[in-house]
Amino acid sequence: MDIASLVGVLLAFGIIGASIGMGGPFIIFVNVPSVLVVVGGTFGATLMRVTLADFLGSFKIGMKAFFYKLDNPQQLIDEAVEMANIARKEGLLALEGREISNPFLQRGIGMCIDGHSPEVVSKMLSKDINLTIERHSKGADMFKAMAIYAPAMGMIGTLIGLVQMLSNMSDPAAIGPAMAVALLTTLYGAVIANAFASPLAEKLLLISAREKLNKALIMESISAIQDGTNPRVMQQILNAFLPEGKRPTDD
Amino acid sequence: MDIASLVGVLLAFGIIGASIGMGGPFIIFVNVPSVLVVVGGTFGATLMRVTLADFLGSFKIGMKAFFYKLDNPQQLIDEAVEMANIARKEGLLALEGREISNPFLQRGIGMCIDGHSPEVVSKMLSKDINLTIERHSKGADMFKAMAIYAPAMGMIGTLIGLVQMLSNMSDPAAIGPAMAVALLTTLYGAVIANAFASPLAEKLLLISAREKLNKALIMESISAIQDGTNPRVMQQILNAFLPEGKRPTDD
Amino acid sequence: MDIASLVGVLLAFGIIGASIGMGGPFIIFVNVPSVLVVVGGTFGATLMRVTLADFLGSFKIGMKAFFYKLDNPQQLIDEAVEMANIARKEGLLALEGREISNPFLQRGIGMCIDGHSPEVVSKMLSKDINLTIERHSKGADMFKAMAIYAPAMGMIGTLIGLVQMLSNMSDPAAIGPAMAVALLTTLYGAVIANAFASPLAEKLLLISAREKLNKALIMESISAIQDGTNPRVMQQILNAFLPEGKRPTDD
Amino acid sequence: MDIASLVGVLLAFGIIGASIGMGGPFIIFVNVPSVLVVVGGTFGATLMRVTLADFLGSFKIGMKAFFYKLDNPQQLIDEAVEMANIARKEGLLALEGREISNPFLQRGIGMCIDGHSPEVVSKMLSKDINLTIERHSKGADMFKAMAIYAPAMGMIGTLIGLVQMLSNMSDPAAIGPAMAVALLTTLYGAVIANAFASPLAEKLLLISAREKLNKALIMESISAIQDGTNPRVMQQILNAFLPEGKRPTDD
Amino acid sequence: MDIASLVGVLLAFGIIGASIGMGGPFIIFVNVPSVLVVVGGTFGATLMRVTLADFLGSFKIGMKAFFYKLDNPQQLIDEAVEMANIARKEGLLALEGREISNPFLQRGIGMCIDGHSPEVVSKMLSKDINLTIERHSKGADMFKAMAIYAPAMGMIGTLIGLVQMLSNMSDPAAIGPAMAVALLTTLYGAVIANAFASPLAEKLLLISAREKLNKALIMESISAIQDGTNPRVMQQILNAFLPEGKRPTDD
Repeated sequence: MDIASLVGVLLAFGIIGASIGMGGPFIIFVNVPSVLVVVGGTFGATLMRVTLADFLGSFKIGMKAFFYKLDNPQQLIDEAVEMANIARKEGLLALEGREISNPFLQRGIGMCIDGHSPEVVSKMLSKDINLTIERHSKGADMFKAMAIYAPAMGMIGTLIGLVQMLSNMSDPAAIGPAMAVALLTTLYGAVIANAFASPLAEKLLLISAREKLNKALIMESISAIQDGTNPRVMQQILNAFLPEGKRPTDD
Repeated sequence: MDIASLVGVLLAFGIIGASIGMGGPFIIFVNVPSVLVVVGGTFGATLMRVTLADFLGSFKIGMKAFFYKLDNPQQLIDEAVEMANIARKEGLLALEGREISNPFLQRGIGMCIDGHSPEVVSKMLSKDINLTIERHSKGADMFKAMAIYAPAMGMIGTLIGLVQMLSNMSDPAAIGPAMAVALLTTLYGAVIANAFASPLAEKLLLISAREKLNKALIMESISAIQDGTNPRVMQQILNAFLPEGKRPTDD
Repeated sequence: MDIASLVGVLLAFGIIGASIGMGGPFIIFVNVPSVLVVVGGTFGATLMRVTLADFLGSFKIGMKAFFYKLDNPQQLIDEAVEMANIARKEGLLALEGREISNPFLQRGIGMCIDGHSPEVVSKMLSKDINLTIERHSKGADMFKAMAIYAPAMGMIGTLIGLVQMLSNMSDPAAIGPAMAVALLTTLYGAVIANAFASPLAEKLLLISAREKLNKALIMESISAIQDGTNPRVMQQILNAFLPEGKRPTDD
Repeated sequence: MDIASLVGVLLAFGIIGASIGMGGPFIIFVNVPSVLVVVGGTFGATLMRVTLADFLGSFKIGMKAFFYKLDNPQQLIDEAVEMANIARKEGLLALEGREISNPFLQRGIGMCIDGHSPEVVSKMLSKDINLTIERHSKGADMFKAMAIYAPAMGMIGTLIGLVQMLSNMSDPAAIGPAMAVALLTTLYGAVIANAFASPLAEKLLLISAREKLNKALIMESISAIQDGTNPRVMQQILNAFLPEGKRPTDD
Repeated sequence: MDIASLVGVLLAFGIIGASIGMGGPFIIFVNVPSVLVVVGGTFGATLMRVTLADFLGSFKIGMKAFFYKLDNPQQLIDEAVEMANIARKEGLLALEGREISNPFLQRGIGMCIDGHSPEVVSKMLSKDINLTIERHSKGADMFKAMAIYAPAMGMIGTLIGLVQMLSNMSDPAAIGPAMAVALLTTLYGAVIANAFASPLAEKLLLISAREKLNKALIMESISAIQDGTNPRVMQQILNAFLPEGKRPTDD
């Protein structure tokens, strides 16, 4: 599991929280109506752009970004080559009942064992790949929209607060705190956009690209196993999916 | 009917309205000249970019975004396959008088019954598709332009108010309320752009893409019905139009 | 004549002017040095980007945007089909002396009557089309550049005013009016960019696209007249140039 | 020589200077440390992006933009056609010693006289074209970078001034002038970017495009002279390089 | 070694430091919590976008930008041509033990001596090129992200400081210094983005492009040496890799 996003969000919010805590009481930064106008306004504007189903689904996608486990391509290659060796010596059916870590690989091998033709297996698996890409891309689009609307809603909240403060300046002592509250929405909007929504959208696109690569590797593996390709040749082909620096020396 | 846009705009304006109401009298946020300069200026600038006919037409398009009913692709496929079955057994004329939910599908089937050649039917229907796309795209362009000009007009209004206030500061007590009024145009501009025009433009593009997909599905259906394609084969072909996760298992 | 740009610019400036007039004396918004720094600075920066000839020519192009008369494509088709009927029955020379509303169409028909080959006619007319596109595109580029530099020059003017005001604050009563004058350049820059230059640039691109379409329609007409195409077939071909919703039903 | 850039920069700086001079003593706008932080910071940031050689070379390129003389394409065509006539009647060697205004044309004709093959001449000349394009493009990139970093350095300078002023507010009378000085860097940055660097970058790209066109015209001319093409045909071919409105009528 | 980036960063920070030092005590610009919130927040947001391995690796890449030594293409060509001469006269094995300045060239020549086929040598070397490009590109992406998040975190820090100051304005004398501290984060963010992260990202892309060119030149050289190409022909081919102005005259 890559914990960069989790560490990153904790670091960003921790640092911002510490910075707030060191300068005075934390409570002056908590204002429920301000939270509502920024979060609610951002949700409202984002919801206008999409359908209800996409909106609700994107949060599940977003949360996954923090806990996503991407299989190590090297391990996938090792596992696929091992299965190719078995399938070559004992036939495809010898793979039945074998425990396979990656569900996509398992699904593909299961189809092979069930006797589906290579074309059908390939078509079904590529559908699964496209579905994952599409889900992640919709999620990334949603968080990008939030990164645009959150600062805008923050500014709207601050303008509302300023207008209210300026309309009633009879008590000079109240001006400072009123302006402090007005600025909170701008702060919330900037934090949501820069310490949450924008990096999350980028991470979802990164995960999407890596997962697509892994699934393409698996599709290639399954195709090679079905075709009975020599496992050493298969390994050399699959090595092309590894980042260049991590390839085993293959001369 | 997808109500995401309606819920979104109500949520955004409701939250902003509640935020205003909680902080004092609502009336201080209502200023008719400020509304006029932002809305009128935005309309004027947008109108300069386009023709009068496109300008007037785009509001109808925009309002449709809130109440647009997109047919469920699965239902369209089911209906088309059912009609294909009937047409295969009893001939195309057996479809005459049949109640068809989607007007585009109905128009296409009607042309088939009237005996038009597949080429003519296809050409007429694709014209209709392009017309819808074009109408939606012009609408989206207009609302994007509004999302650009509304904040600019808001800033212009605020600058006018500031200049007037700064030119006459004889009464210190009037400075606060005058500045409050000056800020209202910036607030109006930001609300129009972020809680209305920008998300609406994006939604129109989304609707346009989905409707185009539906109409392409219908064109494919009608073509298959006219050609007398096997309904099972036709269903498999049409399933490619469904989002991947919602396809019936087709092995 | 499409009056959208004229109505738009009058609406925008009228609304802004009314907003100014309602809030106090109009004279406080008129400051000749401020106008000079914004308009002169914008002209200077724009002139740096281009050649003198392009700079001077673009104003003529820009003014045309308000008074441009685009021929109705339907009328052009009707006129061309009528001429095709005459030419078919009585020969091309029968078109001599005929009054033709569109000068581009007239020029093309004139060349046909003069006996030029279809290739030469087509080449000469396409040159004319490209020239118009190029002129409009240069104009649009210029107004886009103005929409960038006007707000920048407005900010520069305001900074100059602020520095002057801040350097000499001996008379507190003069601060307000001095700041009001300083803000005027920002206001001028925003108005020039958003209520004039930016929408005008977009309109020129729109006109350019429509006029190109009209001239392509005319070239197609003249080619059909020269080739002696059947007028009914010619009409069907030309209908493809009409916006989809305005085509006569052609079944 | 096209003087638009020279006139433009003089106009912009003249107007800004006049605006400063009319409002009070010019000296309050001169602050050496502020100039240093904006100009030095901009140079530092730009230098980080490139190599030392490219950085130093780009100033020479930039200065050329003000004094660049582009040959009139019509004159180039006339000169080339005249030489083609001579070469056709008396042979290529008759061009020896002839005074040729354009050095690129001269170099090409020189190679022809020296007896190089058309392929070699064409290859050597296209190298020269690419070199010029590359030099201008690097210059434009540099000035674009300056247009980005100058306002940023202006803001940095203003922030430094504000922090210093705010840290020591014991003397209220010093606040105004201190803030005036702080704003100077923002002013300098905005002027450098908008009245110098950004338009200059665009002009260099324009010059580059025009000069490339001229050199392509010359290459075509030399190729036609070497091949012994009929001068009238050659003229018609070369006319395609002229802006459409300035072509001699060629029927 | 190209020292432009080193000189640039020293110049930018030196100028900014001098500007700070000239205006008062340097210590008022040092605030550890402000540094933490900007640097920590920027690191957190950037880390969210990427994986832990990419994040840590990019700093090594970034530091290299200051001390990167790119081989002179002319020297590479001279060295390669010299070796081609030796290999032609005495055979490839005569290159064994020869000292070669560029490790990539050395690796390639080593493979040739080891007797690998041209295809294998070419494949292994192109892997190395892609790896370098990928490493530099990831580094550039990271610094671009930092250039986006640093100013945002600066604004967040300033908003926190302003809210704290405004909430407690009992001591008027403390307002100025408190606001000075609040502005420090905006200053830090602007400096990090504009005097460090943004130019560094651009420089990494430039280095990447130049190094790719050098390695392509070396691959071409090795291929020519293995094929026994005539060294004079080889030199002419390799000259195409030199910037146009620096090519030896090759007629």
